[in-house]
Amino acid sequence: MSAPACLRAYLHYVDISTCLHGATGIASRSSAHPGIGGFRIFTRQRCRNLHHSIRLNQARLVNGNKLAILDQFKSSLAFPERSFEIADIPNLYESGQSEKETVLHGYLGARHDMSKKLTFAPLFGPNLTDKIQIISSINASREADRSAHEKLRSLRPHTPVAVKGLLRRRPESGSKGVVTDAKSARTLQDFEFVLRDIQSLNDFPTDIVMTQSTEFPPSQRHLQIRTSKYLHQALVLRNEITKILRTELNDRFSFVEIETPLLFKSTSEGAREFIVPTRRKNMAYSLPQSPQQFKQILMATPISKYFQFAKCFRDEDLRADRQPEFAQLDLEMSFAQGKEVMKVVESLICTLFYNTLGLGVDDIPPKFPRLTYEEAMSRYGSDKPDLRNPIRPFTRIDILLPADLISKITPLKDPLIEAMVVPLKTSPNEARHFISNFLDSPEHTSFLENPDGGPGIFVYDSSKPLQGLSAFKFEAVEQIESNIDLEDGHLIVLQARKKGPSSGGSTPLGELRTSIHRAAVDQLYLEPIDWRDFRPLWVIDFPLFKSHDYSEPGQGGNAGLASTHHPFTSPKTTEDVDLLLKDPTKATADHYDLVINGEEIGGGSRRIHHAAMQEFVFRDILKMEDDRINEFSHLLEALRAGCPPHAGIALGLDRLVAMICSSKFETKMSLRDVIAFPKSGRGEDLMMKSPGPISDEVLKTYHLKLSD
Amino acid sequence: MSAPACLRAYLHYVDISTCLHGATGIASRSSAHPGIGGFRIFTRQRCRNLHHSIRLNQARLVNGNKLAILDQFKSSLAFPERSFEIADIPNLYESGQSEKETVLHGYLGARHDMSKKLTFAPLFGPNLTDKIQIISSINASREADRSAHEKLRSLRPHTPVAVKGLLRRRPESGSKGVVTDAKSARTLQDFEFVLRDIQSLNDFPTDIVMTQSTEFPPSQRHLQIRTSKYLHQALVLRNEITKILRTELNDRFSFVEIETPLLFKSTSEGAREFIVPTRRKNMAYSLPQSPQQFKQILMATPISKYFQFAKCFRDEDLRADRQPEFAQLDLEMSFAQGKEVMKVVESLICTLFYNTLGLGVDDIPPKFPRLTYEEAMSRYGSDKPDLRNPIRPFTRIDILLPADLISKITPLKDPLIEAMVVPLKTSPNEARHFISNFLDSPEHTSFLENPDGGPGIFVYDSSKPLQGLSAFKFEAVEQIESNIDLEDGHLIVLQARKKGPSSGGSTPLGELRTSIHRAAVDQLYLEPIDWRDFRPLWVIDFPLFKSHDYSEPGQGGNAGLASTHHPFTSPKTTEDVDLLLKDPTKATADHYDLVINGEEIGGGSRRIHHAAMQEFVFRDILKMEDDRINEFSHLLEALRAGCPPHAGIALGLDRLVAMICSSKFETKMSLRDVIAFPKSGRGEDLMMKSPGPISDEVLKTYHLKLSD
Repeated sequence: MSAPACLRAYLHYVDISTCLHGATGIASRSSAHPGIGGFRIFTRQRCRNLHHSIRLNQARLVNGNKLAILDQFKSSLAFPERSFEIADIPNLYESGQSEKETVLHGYLGARHDMSKKLTFAPLFGPNLTDKIQIISSINASREADRSAHEKLRSLRPHTPVAVKGLLRRRPESGSKGVVTDAKSARTLQDFEFVLRDIQSLNDFPTDIVMTQSTEFPPSQRHLQIRTSKYLHQALVLRNEITKILRTELNDRFSFVEIETPLLFKSTSEGAREFIVPTRRKNMAYSLPQSPQQFKQILMATPISKYFQFAKCFRDEDLRADRQPEFAQLDLEMSFAQGKEVMKVVESLICTLFYNTLGLGVDDIPPKFPRLTYEEAMSRYGSDKPDLRNPIRPFTRIDILLPADLISKITPLKDPLIEAMVVPLKTSPNEARHFISNFLDSPEHTSFLENPDGGPGIFVYDSSKPLQGLSAFKFEAVEQIESNIDLEDGHLIVLQARKKGPSSGGSTPLGELRTSIHRAAVDQLYLEPIDWRDFRPLWVIDFPLFKSHDYSEPGQGGNAGLASTHHPFTSPKTTEDVDLLLKDPTKATADHYDLVINGEEIGGGSRRIHHAAMQEFVFRDILKMEDDRINEFSHLLEALRAGCPPHAGIALGLDRLVAMICSSKFETKMSLRDVIAFPKSGRGEDLMMKSPGPISDEVLKTYHLKLSD
Repeated sequence: MSAPACLRAYLHYVDISTCLHGATGIASRSSAHPGIGGFRIFTRQRCRNLHHSIRLNQARLVNGNKLAILDQFKSSLAFPERSFEIADIPNLYESGQSEKETVLHGYLGARHDMSKKLTFAPLFGPNLTDKIQIISSINASREADRSAHEKLRSLRPHTPVAVKGLLRRRPESGSKGVVTDAKSARTLQDFEFVLRDIQSLNDFPTDIVMTQSTEFPPSQRHLQIRTSKYLHQALVLRNEITKILRTELNDRFSFVEIETPLLFKSTSEGAREFIVPTRRKNMAYSLPQSPQQFKQILMATPISKYFQFAKCFRDEDLRADRQPEFAQLDLEMSFAQGKEVMKVVESLICTLFYNTLGLGVDDIPPKFPRLTYEEAMSRYGSDKPDLRNPIRPFTRIDILLPADLISKITPLKDPLIEAMVVPLKTSPNEARHFISNFLDSPEHTSFLENPDGGPGIFVYDSSKPLQGLSAFKFEAVEQIESNIDLEDGHLIVLQARKKGPSSGGSTPLGELRTSIHRAAVDQLYLEPIDWRDFRPLWVIDFPLFKSHDYSEPGQGGNAGLASTHHPFTSPKTTEDVDLLLKDPTKATADHYDLVINGEEIGGGSRRIHHAAMQEFVFRDILKMEDDRINEFSHLLEALRAGCPPHAGIALGLDRLVAMICSSKFETKMSLRDVIAFPKSGRGEDLMMKSPGPISDEVLKTYHLKLSD
């Protein structure tokens, strides 16, 4: 076997002919992403096996066939520069172009051999979105054409190539060969490329087999991005989004983008931080959970409006919608209170949604509604209510209900009972069937196991006595009907909870609202949600402190209290300041969350700008020890130096991008779909295989060793 | 003592009356940065002491005077929103404005009390660049004015305030009170503000004392940024620079900005990496030294033009011009060779310098000169030559010199002797004096201690026999004079070195060129360098490999070789590929460095795009073990999947910004001057006090403990 032939065997040794790429892939793909043919790959296990055997094989052959490898590399080392990008052909094509030799670069598509002497093949531009037709035919008088023709027919689809040939206008169909020259009307389809020479710039191996509409495992992220309908577009749109936000902040609002350090030190802000050991024994940096302290320090400088697309890190047990590293749009303004920050953010969000999704003021009015935390909890059972959900706000009805009904619903002595109406569009019978299936489903057992009592659910049915609500007794039914529009098939859901101020992010009834809505939409009893429906709101007036669970990393205080947002958050009013001495848990914060469609997109607050006040909160409210307080001495120093009042916010960029991409592509895009190289639920990069093992030698550099 | 009085004592207890801020600070400050008065602060030691005693005092008083602290905070909690920014007054002032109450925010400047009843005080906008004059007078009929007047007179300069009052046009001097209304001609100086009310938004403490033109220690970075003539402007200009670069890359060249992960894994690229332990025993992330591998993987996706302002990390022993974390503009293009990347970068750099510094094509022509590495080393003795240096390229003259002269210059048997002419503009006597002082200076002893021989230096002097060059003998002098323009006072410097290819970044003669030039400029024997003179060039054709020093972290190979750039760099030509089998040290890389004014601003290369070839370099050239090669399996997989040829570059953003700022402000700006929160030479953030100690408890979370 000659060296080059052997090399080809190495590259192509797995010939799975049943999966071989056909010539029909392209026509049926979505026009939104005219990729090269369709794709299919193995299960993850199979991939691993293949990968493994390839690597062994490769090692063996490298040792035996260096020359062959060098030769193949050399064949793609020099290649002609392109005349222009395929995408630019309609703009840059000039009369006379068809007489000149043109060079194009791109990926070969699936070939159509019309006869021995005639082949068509599409050539896709480097970003796979643009396409031009290559025509190759054997011309008796030109030896070069024959050679090019044969080379073309030897190459697999997906091969990166440089082609030389003649670019020309294509006669319009039905126009008898007449070519119009209206530049404005030109599209890529008006052109074709007559092949004179073709150079393969790399092989596309046979063991990567692609069929339509299948997915690659995360270890093959490059193939995911290459073949997925939307990943590539999402990355491009992400860049567009940051561009719009930057332009607005810089040019409209005169913010300055400032980069803050990522090698920081551990302070007690809330989440667990990653540490970065140094070669000085027992000294470490930490990775910041946010640039909070840096941006506040900037407020004591002439940088009065700061922003940054900041990388942040949290060493937390990951949930599906969290990444250990994430991006946030972080901003801060001096001489400002919360309301001024909210005004800037409203403008940013509107401009962003208008420009990326073609929405307007009728779709998203420029001033967002505001709900206090208490209102949000009592009306929607959530501090991030989804206002698109057609299930109306809850009503408190415990005073109306007969005692025996209450005792059936809850074991609580003096409960608060809230009612929610689910306006199902169906018959009472189907509604009963729906809700009984819903509650029987294993994923919903938690609703029934609530220690405060499960939900009491009634179906409004005008064919029944007291419309099916006889357990309510006549007076209550009359009251309810006069206050709430009810129709046949509507559900009335009662849920008890303890009286007193809300705590946490949601109530059982709030969760039921979300779950029932999702199930009802699935079964077409409620309208599906429009991808272009956005309902931003501000949730404001959060409590300044909440009780602290010591099993979680916290702010290092001993008061059994933790800041709801972070310890730098300012009380809202002078009354709230006074409450700090009487009952800090009753104090309200100047803290605002931006919620869109049930997702928390951002959280911000006015900060304490006064050093003694900040120290008072650390020492007297949170009961932090001197050591802990000293961790913040840089911040106290900056506040002390005549720092003006300031307020800011951080918006979760990944989530915002995922939301816009989902709307644009009308399909649910996750955080991982809008990050080029995301981490798995376990914090692993499955492509890069990070994290990786640490050697004792490396640990030693940092004066560390593994504990037992 | 009443509570508020006690609080004031706490805030002001250090009364250093000799340093008290005077009323004369502003007039004499540079117009480039009209800050509030001048500033002065203690030595670092004194600061620490002060800081310490303040903190103790504070702790004591917090415990005794909570109410006073809360009251003071409450007094600045609510404040009126500003009508507009001071900077916007000339644009937004409308007729009728002077009848309305206007609210402004800013910092109070030094007060001028003209009489008991009349005070002037400037008000500076939040970014300290804009200023309006406040007029406060007691009006017998208005009690409010009296109260405001007294409040104003109680406040220290630098206090952040909100003021209410009447904004009005100022009569032009000499125009007898006539006010013109040509909007275009308005500046802030045409306005004045009649005070009606003033609210202090924070105290400015007496122990922070500012006098003119002094510096704060790094622990007081916020005060450095506030008072330094250029730090604030440098941060603003840095934002402007990234904006220009982003716009060019996005809009002109269709690059897509992609964020790549910072939690990566350790691979052997060259520098020592920081590790980030995880809670999975013995597993760690590492912080990337560059996004190199991620961007190459992107080249196997439809992202064909990638860029990113990337944060990079190196755990190296720091030099003055290095930071452990730094920013680079990272870019990569598929279907491209080095020359296409160079073209994009030339355009970027020109646009940047033209737009930020007002330069044009006459100042920086759009195509940069290219020097091969060998040319740079033999002509300038440096792989990053400063072309502004008037000392002309070196000449090799060993063939001309008499043997006895050679033997005096060097102990080497068969040396290469290079000559450099320093065109001092002075008399031969002064030149002799200059060079003898230069060589006697302790910092230059290394030149004399060179084991290949010290420099032989001659002064051209037409009053002497053979013009002072008699050691050269007649024939050599004749030859030299016919080839080189020499004038009285010029130095001819001879330096020997070993024959053979260059290695490393500079030769002794190259270093001498830089040092003599600096010294000669200092003493006015050479023209000072123009701040607006920029001489970019490309140094190309570096050797692909260099010999490897095992004491440094390397690429994990055992061949005694290391890649000059990184192991992904492509050989330049097919001949260089062939050399890999014969003598890899002779192979040239498609590697290009962008050098401006003697500084390496960027380094890039074409990459190996072919998996088998990349593995060959790992295994057969660098002799890496399988384990090491497997660290790169993700990259090999991506290359194997039909990855097109690609090339890229990384530009050091911090250095580029420092260069532009130095030119703009006509003063040397260091890397630290263009980073908001820089690290010291020991890698410490002296403000934040990072890195900080790690507790055993935290280490335990990561299954680690300190080694003995």
